[in-house]
Amino acid sequence: MTVIYNFSAGPAVLPKEVLQQAAAEMLDWHGSGMSVMEMSHRGAEFMSIMDAAQQDLRDLLAIPANYKILFLQGGGLGENAIVPMNLMGLRPDATIDFVHTGSWSGKSIKEAQKYAKVNVAASAAENGFTSVPARDSWKLTADAAYVHLCTNETIDGVEYHFVPDVAADTNGAPIVADMSSHILSREIDVSRYGVIFGGAQKNIGPAGLTIAIVRDDLLGQALPCCPSAFDWKIVAENGSMYNTPPTYAIYIAGLVFQWLKRQGGVAAMEQKNIAKATLLYDYLDSTDFYENRVEKAYRSRMNVPFYLKDETLNASFLAAAKERGLLQLKGHKSVGGMRASIYNAMPFEGVQALVHFMQEFAQASHK
Amino acid sequence: MTVIYNFSAGPAVLPKEVLQQAAAEMLDWHGSGMSVMEMSHRGAEFMSIMDAAQQDLRDLLAIPANYKILFLQGGGLGENAIVPMNLMGLRPDATIDFVHTGSWSGKSIKEAQKYAKVNVAASAAENGFTSVPARDSWKLTADAAYVHLCTNETIDGVEYHFVPDVAADTNGAPIVADMSSHILSREIDVSRYGVIFGGAQKNIGPAGLTIAIVRDDLLGQALPCCPSAFDWKIVAENGSMYNTPPTYAIYIAGLVFQWLKRQGGVAAMEQKNIAKATLLYDYLDSTDFYENRVEKAYRSRMNVPFYLKDETLNASFLAAAKERGLLQLKGHKSVGGMRASIYNAMPFEGVQALVHFMQEFAQASHK
Repeated sequence: MTVIYNFSAGPAVLPKEVLQQAAAEMLDWHGSGMSVMEMSHRGAEFMSIMDAAQQDLRDLLAIPANYKILFLQGGGLGENAIVPMNLMGLRPDATIDFVHTGSWSGKSIKEAQKYAKVNVAASAAENGFTSVPARDSWKLTADAAYVHLCTNETIDGVEYHFVPDVAADTNGAPIVADMSSHILSREIDVSRYGVIFGGAQKNIGPAGLTIAIVRDDLLGQALPCCPSAFDWKIVAENGSMYNTPPTYAIYIAGLVFQWLKRQGGVAAMEQKNIAKATLLYDYLDSTDFYENRVEKAYRSRMNVPFYLKDETLNASFLAAAKERGLLQLKGHKSVGGMRASIYNAMPFEGVQALVHFMQEFAQASHK
Repeated sequence: MTVIYNFSAGPAVLPKEVLQQAAAEMLDWHGSGMSVMEMSHRGAEFMSIMDAAQQDLRDLLAIPANYKILFLQGGGLGENAIVPMNLMGLRPDATIDFVHTGSWSGKSIKEAQKYAKVNVAASAAENGFTSVPARDSWKLTADAAYVHLCTNETIDGVEYHFVPDVAADTNGAPIVADMSSHILSREIDVSRYGVIFGGAQKNIGPAGLTIAIVRDDLLGQALPCCPSAFDWKIVAENGSMYNTPPTYAIYIAGLVFQWLKRQGGVAAMEQKNIAKATLLYDYLDSTDFYENRVEKAYRSRMNVPFYLKDETLNASFLAAAKERGLLQLKGHKSVGGMRASIYNAMPFEGVQALVHFMQEFAQASHK
């Protein structure tokens, strides 16, 4: 097997140690004679895996005791419906405030309109989603049900590097944050949020697992139409075992959490992510051959979209990259160009290899 | 590793060959340098896995061209809401007919009441869910939206060995069948059903994958409250890629489908399942030490609940079984006793080992 670096936006690269352990344990987990895939979710073996995964995630993000960790299914798109279904039951006439920063918050806005009145408090559409609108431009709703943010836009490469204050303008509305593509990449103060959610398939583990971190007082507010299997209160009361959870995905996520702890936790990971992102953005800013269009203050450390100035070279760029083992660099079809997703599991060497290749490709094309 | 036999009701035993292949391919699928878990769901590699899995399932069940195969999330309990959400949009005032044959159809009835009027056309509650009510006792609704059956009750061990005719009494209502725990265990005539659905974690693969087989004319009938990610029409139009599908679970399911083909397909598997079930039921009927309480005509080939006549011996039975490598035989907490789930991946030798142990345990206890 040649060394490859996988820049997929998700499902995405996982730590090699995690995959090695998963392969070694596939037929016999800890002498049980069973694969994790074959275990009853209610048996002692899987319960120990589940409990450890929850506790490790709680440790990694310093999640306060008054927040529940829920393991769900349906991904970020599923949660776009499940979030308003869970939060609009007590005040169905209230308004949800959104900040529109790119493709993912756009999808959330569209889906939420099925369940509630929606106000787009601010939008970066006019600049092509290359920034987070300044906080003082947000037109929030007094008495909003909640304020929905996508704190890292996977497709547009825009990230919040601040936590906005919204309580004063909304009469205390909680922030609901879609952190799918940067959760565990940086330290966060969970207490600033009411709900944090995300699909696992970027920085946590396999597709098919969704994680929600919900403040206790926000449980029990579901609309009558919310399916029981997605009702956070029911899921919380049953320890994420109301319906059969995606057991193998939880096991892999648990291995990733253990790996993160061995790396020094989220704080250490954040420093590595800053180093990786700096290397790539510094190169992009130093050349006329490529460009990243996001304002510097809002650039994502996880997803780096970039364009060749001469887009007729796109196909040959991708082919030459693949030849070097630099995989899945094609940008999302909605924005074109290239995208390097450099999640936690992407080693520094992978970004070095990418920059080195980009330099060579630029030089060869200039001849 | 000692030889064990895993009788879990789900997540459940998988074919050893499948697990061996998954372990071998964990770090490098077919020379791609990537784990299947790390692949973009839109890349050529995963698309080939997805297409093969769909085609193999279509082949195995002889699914006609006018049915879509959908890969979803949320399991059987999720689908209990998602089914009425998808079928009640055109006639929200119509009634859903249910036949109540045990725990799972009971859960389906309760959840459906959130979305529609429900009629329990027949119930086996009065005999403790030990049969399927005779077809001529069903009180169906003229013009019903659909008729929901759970064709194998995992907890109660009751299975339909017939497909009822309901069209004449309902003005052509389709049958919606929850086949979670016996799909692929026997030949079925898909054209007799409007919708077939099930969680994968019994006879197909890992928990977290849900499969729905939907007749084309039943797409596009969703209630407005149905989340887009679970709207069968949207899922079908996007080839089960509207939201990121549970890619690794689909890969494992695909390996199981290939394994089933190598075993001779569903017809051959059905013969093996009959042989396994016959061995176990014949023994149960031959002894006064154990009993199965389900009427013979409705006994499940997949899930065999049984009781020790002297229930004070339950704990020592389970401990002795575990000592022999016969795992997860404890019955569901709601019904007690024991349960042997003998899905496709349980070899005949596993049932032989179980019966042998049960004989020895009975003899030792009689001393």
